[in-house]
Amino acid sequence: MNYKMIRNILGWLLLFEAGFMLVPLVTGICYGESETVFFAITILLCASIGGLCVWNKPKDSALYAREGFVIVSLSWIVLSLLGAIPFFISGVIPSYLDAVFETVSGFTTTGASILTEVESLPKCMLMWRSFTHWVGGMGVLVFIMAFMPLSGGQNMHIMKAESPGPSVSKLVPRVKTTALILYSIYIVMTLVMFVLLLFGDMTPFEALNTTFSTAGTGGFSIRGDSLASFSPYVHVVVTVFMLLFSVNFTCYYLLLLGRVKEAFNSEVRRFLVIVFAVIAVITLNIRGIYDTFGETLRHAALTVASIISTTGFATENYNLWPELSRTLLVVIMFIGACAGSTGGGLKISRLMILFRGAFHEIGNLAHPRRVKRVTVDGHPVDTEVVRATNVYMMWYVLLFTVSVILISFDDHDLITNITAVAATINNVGPGLGSVGPTGNFAFFSLPSKLVLIFDMLAGRLELFPMLVLFAPATWRRS
Amino acid sequence: MNYKMIRNILGWLLLFEAGFMLVPLVTGICYGESETVFFAITILLCASIGGLCVWNKPKDSALYAREGFVIVSLSWIVLSLLGAIPFFISGVIPSYLDAVFETVSGFTTTGASILTEVESLPKCMLMWRSFTHWVGGMGVLVFIMAFMPLSGGQNMHIMKAESPGPSVSKLVPRVKTTALILYSIYIVMTLVMFVLLLFGDMTPFEALNTTFSTAGTGGFSIRGDSLASFSPYVHVVVTVFMLLFSVNFTCYYLLLLGRVKEAFNSEVRRFLVIVFAVIAVITLNIRGIYDTFGETLRHAALTVASIISTTGFATENYNLWPELSRTLLVVIMFIGACAGSTGGGLKISRLMILFRGAFHEIGNLAHPRRVKRVTVDGHPVDTEVVRATNVYMMWYVLLFTVSVILISFDDHDLITNITAVAATINNVGPGLGSVGPTGNFAFFSLPSKLVLIFDMLAGRLELFPMLVLFAPATWRRS
Repeated sequence: MNYKMIRNILGWLLLFEAGFMLVPLVTGICYGESETVFFAITILLCASIGGLCVWNKPKDSALYAREGFVIVSLSWIVLSLLGAIPFFISGVIPSYLDAVFETVSGFTTTGASILTEVESLPKCMLMWRSFTHWVGGMGVLVFIMAFMPLSGGQNMHIMKAESPGPSVSKLVPRVKTTALILYSIYIVMTLVMFVLLLFGDMTPFEALNTTFSTAGTGGFSIRGDSLASFSPYVHVVVTVFMLLFSVNFTCYYLLLLGRVKEAFNSEVRRFLVIVFAVIAVITLNIRGIYDTFGETLRHAALTVASIISTTGFATENYNLWPELSRTLLVVIMFIGACAGSTGGGLKISRLMILFRGAFHEIGNLAHPRRVKRVTVDGHPVDTEVVRATNVYMMWYVLLFTVSVILISFDDHDLITNITAVAATINNVGPGLGSVGPTGNFAFFSLPSKLVLIFDMLAGRLELFPMLVLFAPATWRRS
Repeated sequence: MNYKMIRNILGWLLLFEAGFMLVPLVTGICYGESETVFFAITILLCASIGGLCVWNKPKDSALYAREGFVIVSLSWIVLSLLGAIPFFISGVIPSYLDAVFETVSGFTTTGASILTEVESLPKCMLMWRSFTHWVGGMGVLVFIMAFMPLSGGQNMHIMKAESPGPSVSKLVPRVKTTALILYSIYIVMTLVMFVLLLFGDMTPFEALNTTFSTAGTGGFSIRGDSLASFSPYVHVVVTVFMLLFSVNFTCYYLLLLGRVKEAFNSEVRRFLVIVFAVIAVITLNIRGIYDTFGETLRHAALTVASIISTTGFATENYNLWPELSRTLLVVIMFIGACAGSTGGGLKISRLMILFRGAFHEIGNLAHPRRVKRVTVDGHPVDTEVVRATNVYMMWYVLLFTVSVILISFDDHDLITNITAVAATINNVGPGLGSVGPTGNFAFFSLPSKLVLIFDMLAGRLELFPMLVLFAPATWRRS
């Protein structure tokens, strides 16, 4: 294990975190808030520790798969532990564990909150919450690699370990260039959404926060009722952008290059079919609850887009909808967004690989001597990828089951427990029952919060980095 | 597809079903019940159709994998459709679909009932219900093959398709001999349990019914309160035998041969560890609800044995227990019994293969160049087996999810829906919520009952036969 190199990269991470905190710092200064000082303190802390860590550049910069996983998981943990400091030392969140929960929820773009009331929070704190979503959305280390003076080709290990979905490929030969292209798309889409929201009934502060939350498919809101009290125009803009940010970003790159047919690959098509089908069924299922068809459709579309993109905004308490709608919402929590987007969940492409393999096998049982391979978009899927995807699924089921058992020690009802784990492991945010859109995660015990923090990190980092970090084999000499 | 051979085997099946119905016929005659006539009618029907089908022995007796799956799934469907006739024509169950539900629930050893009241039922009907459990427990076709004048080695395809668990192996070179050994063990254990129950407060009729239900790990009871009103002695006997019938039967064969170490293989050991751990946790969790430690332990042990063996007897309404206990009960519903027993669920050995593969892979991520294979009991597991097990798991998840969505159209609560599907697909019987130990399945709509019937059959036959039956590829010319 190349500890010096790990220290070096974590150092850079802290320097970047100090940089990120300039956003709430500036916000606080603009609004003349006294809490701004806590960001200044944390920035100094991050910058000085980070500076010390990067001082001596290690001679051996070799990084292998193992280091890649460990760096990614440690980075997200360190990022959250330090990111929580302003919430804690300002007294906005009196418990440090709660502050870490909120920050992990922010960086992992989950949006599950332990705050019972957000409207009284200082604006700099609200901005930091939303901004963590934006930073976490595309991956912190991908961001760092795009700007960091790190040479060598080993950063692919880091990018692979951090990027969501099973099929991350380099768009162009250089990793750094790929990262820059993806970030440019992310930034342009963020700007477009911000400008569009300004045309609605939002103040620039509200529009910026909502944009950061949407872009990262996070879901932290600046109002207690999430988006309910904003205008239908805002609802429509947010719905459209939640879906746009759930699509594989390579789709936009290919569209820019004019390769339309490649851009709408089977994952994107499948995603859109699922979205529109579920919106249609829920609209039919909840008809009669709202006055007009337009209102029904708007609430159904926003809720479906919010859940499948794993954002977690709400305009209505879907906890009270009929069981069919509630069931479908739980199912799309697990499905999630496209790979290579900012969304969470199991991801469409992963499910496609799994189910194509499963369908395939039934044909093989009937005709054992037939030789056919699983294909996606005409290309045969490597058997290694199919196997890794199966292993992913098993760990997912195991982690889910163990988490539900562990938090059931708190004796809350089963639907709350099941959907609390589903909402954190899939980085959605709200669930059903007591963690529904009008509820929050404050009532869980300390051990349960630790379990859910682990689930949020494991879900965002696609399980393996967190598992490798805690596997004894990782720390044995090879 | 060898249709003539399929017709021939289904014919033999009907002749055997006519034979099985002699048990309720004799019961009815003994108790002088007028409903006995409906069994006589059905026996005549089965015997005449069956006789016609076996009249011409087909010249080509070749059976391939495809035919094996189709024969198994069709057999169980035909068996249930005809087995439901006495319930229906006697008016005991006024709807034919409900009668089929009850019969499928019987043969698949599920024990989920649509009857709201069982104590007023004629004794011949109660006996037929319990006896279907006993017949279904070890597999109907394995039974037929043990006695049927079928020559040729192709019946391994049928045995493999019907036997529970991923690791069915022939104990001795000849399939017929293997089946006879397993049936002898089954019959001896059934007899021992019957005799032991006679020492308690049960009438011979009650003891025989309870023995049939336990041996098949079914769960149909002759009283409305299941086993609650019987003595603690009966509870202990039933608890022990539920566990004995959940252990791989080859374990007993090896014990008889004195190969003790082989008999307690890692599946059996793992099963016992899970059973005792869950009993311990639940006993602690429900302490205070009952007067004495003995009573608490007895209810906890019976409930855990009942659920993990997928029998479904109850002495207490565990629906009202704390959430930790309820959650653990749902988890062990999915775990299920050992492969090669009469129990259902995912099976310990299947989960072992899946999780060993998953754990293994984390080590491989940290050390990619290491070459190690998944092993069970020291033997490396064939990669084909691992793959088939993964495919099984994916179909299981898919079927589970689709079933929950489909029955949620009825608008019952989510816990009822989730556990109703869990209880049928795993052949347990009762779930939580409205399908808890004091509830039943009568309130579901007609389409939902069809879904649950499919789930019971798919669960008992380990998915693939039912999937192959409905796969278009099966019916295409190869």
